[in-house]
Amino acid sequence: MRKNPPGALVRPLVQALTPYTPGEQPRIKGLIKLNTNENPYPPSPKVLRATKAAVDGRLRLYPNPTAQTLREKLARLHRCGLENIIVGNGSDELLAMAVRCFVEPVHPSTRGSCTRVQFFAPSYSLYPVLADIHGAESNPVPLNPDFSVPPIADLKRRKQWDFDAALTFVTTPNAPSGRGYATSELDQLCRAQKRVIVLDEAYVDFANQNALSLALKYPHVLVARTFSKAYSLCAQRVGYFVGPPTLIEALQKIRDSYNVNALGQIAAAATLDDLPYYRANFQKVIDTRQKLTRELEALGFRVMPSQTNFVLAKPPEFAAKHWLEKLRARRILVRWFDQTDLRNYLRISIGTRTQAEALVRAAQDILRQS
Amino acid sequence: MRKNPPGALVRPLVQALTPYTPGEQPRIKGLIKLNTNENPYPPSPKVLRATKAAVDGRLRLYPNPTAQTLREKLARLHRCGLENIIVGNGSDELLAMAVRCFVEPVHPSTRGSCTRVQFFAPSYSLYPVLADIHGAESNPVPLNPDFSVPPIADLKRRKQWDFDAALTFVTTPNAPSGRGYATSELDQLCRAQKRVIVLDEAYVDFANQNALSLALKYPHVLVARTFSKAYSLCAQRVGYFVGPPTLIEALQKIRDSYNVNALGQIAAAATLDDLPYYRANFQKVIDTRQKLTRELEALGFRVMPSQTNFVLAKPPEFAAKHWLEKLRARRILVRWFDQTDLRNYLRISIGTRTQAEALVRAAQDILRQS
Repeated sequence: MRKNPPGALVRPLVQALTPYTPGEQPRIKGLIKLNTNENPYPPSPKVLRATKAAVDGRLRLYPNPTAQTLREKLARLHRCGLENIIVGNGSDELLAMAVRCFVEPVHPSTRGSCTRVQFFAPSYSLYPVLADIHGAESNPVPLNPDFSVPPIADLKRRKQWDFDAALTFVTTPNAPSGRGYATSELDQLCRAQKRVIVLDEAYVDFANQNALSLALKYPHVLVARTFSKAYSLCAQRVGYFVGPPTLIEALQKIRDSYNVNALGQIAAAATLDDLPYYRANFQKVIDTRQKLTRELEALGFRVMPSQTNFVLAKPPEFAAKHWLEKLRARRILVRWFDQTDLRNYLRISIGTRTQAEALVRAAQDILRQS
Repeated sequence: MRKNPPGALVRPLVQALTPYTPGEQPRIKGLIKLNTNENPYPPSPKVLRATKAAVDGRLRLYPNPTAQTLREKLARLHRCGLENIIVGNGSDELLAMAVRCFVEPVHPSTRGSCTRVQFFAPSYSLYPVLADIHGAESNPVPLNPDFSVPPIADLKRRKQWDFDAALTFVTTPNAPSGRGYATSELDQLCRAQKRVIVLDEAYVDFANQNALSLALKYPHVLVARTFSKAYSLCAQRVGYFVGPPTLIEALQKIRDSYNVNALGQIAAAATLDDLPYYRANFQKVIDTRQKLTRELEALGFRVMPSQTNFVLAKPPEFAAKHWLEKLRARRILVRWFDQTDLRNYLRISIGTRTQAEALVRAAQDILRQS
């Protein structure tokens, strides 16, 4: 029989990993779920109809391996070619693939920029996890205290930022702060950066500008988009990258052949045929965000300006962690991050108007009982 | 502006890759598609109903990150614990994850067994592609000419087989030959193998035995299963591994958080509630396989014995490649592999009885015109 201890079967790299913690997905009845930035509004009736209509004997067949129809529609939408687009099993899959495609794993004799995954802190907490899984090096560089991006001159002076890093992720608008970045500012960063940069626009539909044009302008810039948040399709796992053909082609080479399920492709394609429905939802979310911001501020919260479907807010009176618990006791779930730069904040997804009102009432109640 | 040529952005490893070629997925009207081993029968009416019923506003929510309900049902089916099961975006995703989890990439100072992905040739053509993508070494070892696995003593004598390889894939029953392997024989191989071995049972429901028990017996054995082929759910991308908790936990660490879409989870779970429907289909496929084998043999084909939903057959009169073209001209698509050990064969998926009859008629027609 085997002599090796079971531990020796797994790569030391993997043994040492701490897994990424996604936001909780409890299914508690009556729970107001404002912790994972899902859209409070359902997909459009047309999308639901198209998806239902596709649930038949064709499920026995493989999906289109390159999401052809969806890519054609996306290419028309973004006025680019098919060779500028790759579709993923959610944009998370593509972010992981970008690490594998552009970054060398660290090895005693391989170290430095070519092994570096760079990002601002705080931003999407998945990036360092992806770097760890790949055996690459993370280079988190602090944002300014107001979550703005330091000017290029500051980044150069501070030395910590690596303009030659193999891969740089920029969450824009930023998560979890909600802050938006001007395209002109991102353009400067792209010009200063020598290797691949992914502008992760998961929340961009709730913002007042986007940087998609940069992915069609530079040979080293990719823009990540997703149908999850703005387009109410978290369940179906569809995201995509727009970018230069050389980078897209490289990503296609390492993609699983049938990475995007057929109903997800159909739902996403139908979404693009009904954009006015979604634009109306974006406006509702933005209106609720503004109202919620004012009301929380009136209660003593310090709310960061947001260009997304969530707000980052520093609550009054108690520690943020205690607010998390007190809200949960009132069947409202928000997100709290146990890390230095975020410990004093709650991240609150923008729900429906009714959900936002319930949150404000719960906050009033918590403060009254203090 | 940037000075580097765009090529320098992509890892040399990825630049050198040749992508995996999946079977064609044309949507030509009236085409008889016998090239990608899809099940000719649709999912059960109960599965379609359950899936349709889930197409509603809940699509805005993330799927369960660990496919909890599906894993519970699978654990009951296989009489094991939840910690013995991981679900993937098709079993292809899990095969790729196994390479990343158990195999070190080759590096000038890292070479040998720990970087080795081993498999028999011919078998699933994805394995060497996954090794290449990871920067690992492929160790293809020829099967016997009749596609049987060489006895352990032969493997030891021949030296080419590495009993210490980091990861060994065994397609069982074999693809593309269709040959089945006895569990006792696989058990011997597992006992001889020192590191991780994946028994890839994608086609096992069409076979007369399976090796699932080995994954619950040894600390280094995983069994891969899929809902694609036997359970008519290619479109929805659901596969799973059964195996020891240490290996499953390691794989969980490197999994994308939401890798399995919600409707896929629901369809797969509903499938497990209606197994008699599928067992009746397996029998129909097996009956058709036997009839088709006899009829092709009567026409001069040499048909390999099959335990799967396809047959590998050496056609008479013309080269296999020409048969591919001649059948295609008659709107019948089969698979041909342009590689030394398979060039003389066609791989023919078992369709419905009607499709099999159409294939035989087309073959008769082709031979008549020769």
